[in-house]
Amino acid sequence: MRNRSCARGNHAPVYGGRSVKLVDAQDFATQVAKLALSTYRGPCPDQAARNAINCIADTIAVALAGAQEPCVTLLGSAAGVAGSSGDCLVWGTTRKTTALDAALLNATASHALDYDDICAVFGGHHSAPLVAPLLAVAQERTCTGDEVLRAYVTGVEVTVRLSRALNPEHYAKGWHPTSTLGVFGVAAALGCLLGLDESRLATALSIAASMAAGIKANFGSMVKPLHVGLCARSGLLAARLAQAGYDAGVDTFEDKQGFFEVYNGRGKYTAALALEPRDGSLEIAGSSVGIKQFPCCGSTHAAVTAALQLRGGRSLREDQIARIRILPNGNRLAHTNKPQPRTALEGKFSVQYVVARALLSGSVRLDHFSEAAIQAPEIQRLLPRIDASPHPDMPLTGDRLWGAEVIVHLASGEVLSCRLEDLPCRDGNYPMTDDELWEKFQDCAGAALPRDKVMALFKTIHGLPDLPDAGAISRLMAA
Amino acid sequence: MRNRSCARGNHAPVYGGRSVKLVDAQDFATQVAKLALSTYRGPCPDQAARNAINCIADTIAVALAGAQEPCVTLLGSAAGVAGSSGDCLVWGTTRKTTALDAALLNATASHALDYDDICAVFGGHHSAPLVAPLLAVAQERTCTGDEVLRAYVTGVEVTVRLSRALNPEHYAKGWHPTSTLGVFGVAAALGCLLGLDESRLATALSIAASMAAGIKANFGSMVKPLHVGLCARSGLLAARLAQAGYDAGVDTFEDKQGFFEVYNGRGKYTAALALEPRDGSLEIAGSSVGIKQFPCCGSTHAAVTAALQLRGGRSLREDQIARIRILPNGNRLAHTNKPQPRTALEGKFSVQYVVARALLSGSVRLDHFSEAAIQAPEIQRLLPRIDASPHPDMPLTGDRLWGAEVIVHLASGEVLSCRLEDLPCRDGNYPMTDDELWEKFQDCAGAALPRDKVMALFKTIHGLPDLPDAGAISRLMAA
Repeated sequence: MRNRSCARGNHAPVYGGRSVKLVDAQDFATQVAKLALSTYRGPCPDQAARNAINCIADTIAVALAGAQEPCVTLLGSAAGVAGSSGDCLVWGTTRKTTALDAALLNATASHALDYDDICAVFGGHHSAPLVAPLLAVAQERTCTGDEVLRAYVTGVEVTVRLSRALNPEHYAKGWHPTSTLGVFGVAAALGCLLGLDESRLATALSIAASMAAGIKANFGSMVKPLHVGLCARSGLLAARLAQAGYDAGVDTFEDKQGFFEVYNGRGKYTAALALEPRDGSLEIAGSSVGIKQFPCCGSTHAAVTAALQLRGGRSLREDQIARIRILPNGNRLAHTNKPQPRTALEGKFSVQYVVARALLSGSVRLDHFSEAAIQAPEIQRLLPRIDASPHPDMPLTGDRLWGAEVIVHLASGEVLSCRLEDLPCRDGNYPMTDDELWEKFQDCAGAALPRDKVMALFKTIHGLPDLPDAGAISRLMAA
Repeated sequence: MRNRSCARGNHAPVYGGRSVKLVDAQDFATQVAKLALSTYRGPCPDQAARNAINCIADTIAVALAGAQEPCVTLLGSAAGVAGSSGDCLVWGTTRKTTALDAALLNATASHALDYDDICAVFGGHHSAPLVAPLLAVAQERTCTGDEVLRAYVTGVEVTVRLSRALNPEHYAKGWHPTSTLGVFGVAAALGCLLGLDESRLATALSIAASMAAGIKANFGSMVKPLHVGLCARSGLLAARLAQAGYDAGVDTFEDKQGFFEVYNGRGKYTAALALEPRDGSLEIAGSSVGIKQFPCCGSTHAAVTAALQLRGGRSLREDQIARIRILPNGNRLAHTNKPQPRTALEGKFSVQYVVARALLSGSVRLDHFSEAAIQAPEIQRLLPRIDASPHPDMPLTGDRLWGAEVIVHLASGEVLSCRLEDLPCRDGNYPMTDDELWEKFQDCAGAALPRDKVMALFKTIHGLPDLPDAGAISRLMAA
């Protein structure tokens, strides 16, 4: 039973200054728990299930590609981390450990390359914190694929709805919402999967409110993916503690010293937005949810896509190209104008390199971000012929700030060009095709698994709704 | 080597609006690391060592008393927590696990009864997060008592100095500084004990900046002591990751989206206060560090002390007492005016009960907070003769707000009274005597250990500076 002895008076909920009519006067955590359970138990329309499966597959693939990154291997080598044996695979290895530590390592791997899916409303990565703990617990308890799918959809619902209440201020302030809000999605999703009732689920959310952490000042370091691993572990622990009988504060979100006030501040959130009816449309089915098609800075994606489109099916050699003009929206250029990248990381932020690579190779894939690939002679010969400058007529304010135009002058005199007005990511307005999804999947998963296992894994994930034992997915990820 | 690729430009440190001259332009984390290492390696004067040992002994005792509280046992029973075997004792049991999970459980136990030591500057409990991870690592690595003592002193130094920079705003905002600032003390103390150099120690502090969590909205529930356990585990993990080779952001504290701005906000901190020279005087030797003498609300302590003093050595029976007037400073009464407490928790917050108990028993100890003790007939007969009201001439503002006067009218006509102007805790201005320290120690440790082991443990802790293997302390805590 939810311990109500902690209720600190009968003050009205703060709710960002708005007066919200609470039909049954329940605290915010209880209302979110109610919403989570109705999502978990409610219908999951086809579009929602399709998007969910694509996001889960994408997360698994990028995690396999990220599993050998130092942020994961160093974490896994720290004394006491994943030291105990358990049922849950550390993806891309043969090591097995507890669900808590598998969640920590696999969620860190999911974000290690910063190549995992994105939700624009959330201002963060919605799947990376969720998929790892869900599959860990599924492996431990033999959950069905349908249960995992519904729990995942629920986790995204809670995460993104909370971000509606707190963003953009939360993100702008310096928090990393992927972890600070993701922890609630994880607690809700895992709470549902573990069978918590409404009261216990509310307690899990209240416990999670004391575990939210991660600041953007650590972006650009190994601590960024670590945020995601810690958030996955914490959210699962919160659900486990609630299950074990922990109590927690009751007005943990809306208290005058609660999550909303402490993390955002007075007047900088609208709690009710998290609870608004949305006519049955689930966040995972919304247009703001997108997948990154290329393993480089999101600000280069429109230019890469334009380069691929103007090239069409034809192959281009460096000696056929006289000159390239790249004209991204001006907002995209300050951090991606790197005419002479040297390292792999610089390559990811060089719009010149990724456009050159797209034109010459017809794709931009993981193995294009080695120093050898960046120093390849044909690339180095082409780079001096590339000019990048802000697009002269793309708007610098508004909601279409992710466009680019690429113009290629061939030695033959022919000019190829393509202009995209807006491409923040491959979101619901411009989703990746099945072929593109498969191409990314095999590129990423192939970094850890042999080709036949990659195909089997892809098929198994896509059969998720009918999978009697979702642990089958993790079993295919051993390497 | 500290990774400097994350430096986000050469902007001057923010430092709460003050322009601080940084002699060597080092980032804040590096300067704190330098301070920590010089504390760890520097002289530890007698008074500092004496206070440190008293605080460590007090923490160990209250942790043994708290070890069977549900916040600890439920945590220890959650799947995946302390599941793996290791070298480190879960205090008050025979279970051994990793240092990380021993830190989690033992630090939670240290704060389970809210009876652990307090630092007024810090606005929190300085020892509870520190002692558990230090003794866990000491048991794993065979550290000397002197090393543990110095690391403890260093942890307190970092914790309290950071609170000088951030308080009172940090506490007032709704953070639980015991965990949100304690995590840096733990990272620093454990980093020193693990032998990190300045650069690695700075990295540990920067990692910890992404792990700080714990909100006061969860006060009054099991999550409050859990904060302390999570903080101890996180601080140790931060030190371990830095040791393993993790990198982190560089301006993690002073960045415009760094710890100071995100956790306190612009203009609400003065970073330089953490780094100010203090003429070699260590925080642990300061007058703000105090020990709780009684296992009840701090707001009742002056009244309890007054009751014990006016009683002196004589014993009082309930039928000898005609009437009691309790006159605490008005600030202390709103939450402690409970004339008819029923539960143990209500008893801890009833100034009437604790004064009655002090007068009749000559002490206020752990076993006085059972329902049976509160319902004892002599107590129940006495309570209606007690009146509590705000003291008519004690100030409601200023820095002496913790006083009380107690006046006892005996049936014989004799009147006994005692007035204390200020007693926030048994701090450096009014320290507990050796006898009082021993009385609390045996009351608390005796809840878990047989009497002969209690005495051996007390003596071993007091021999800390000369102990060749500080693991000896933990070995005496098995039960």
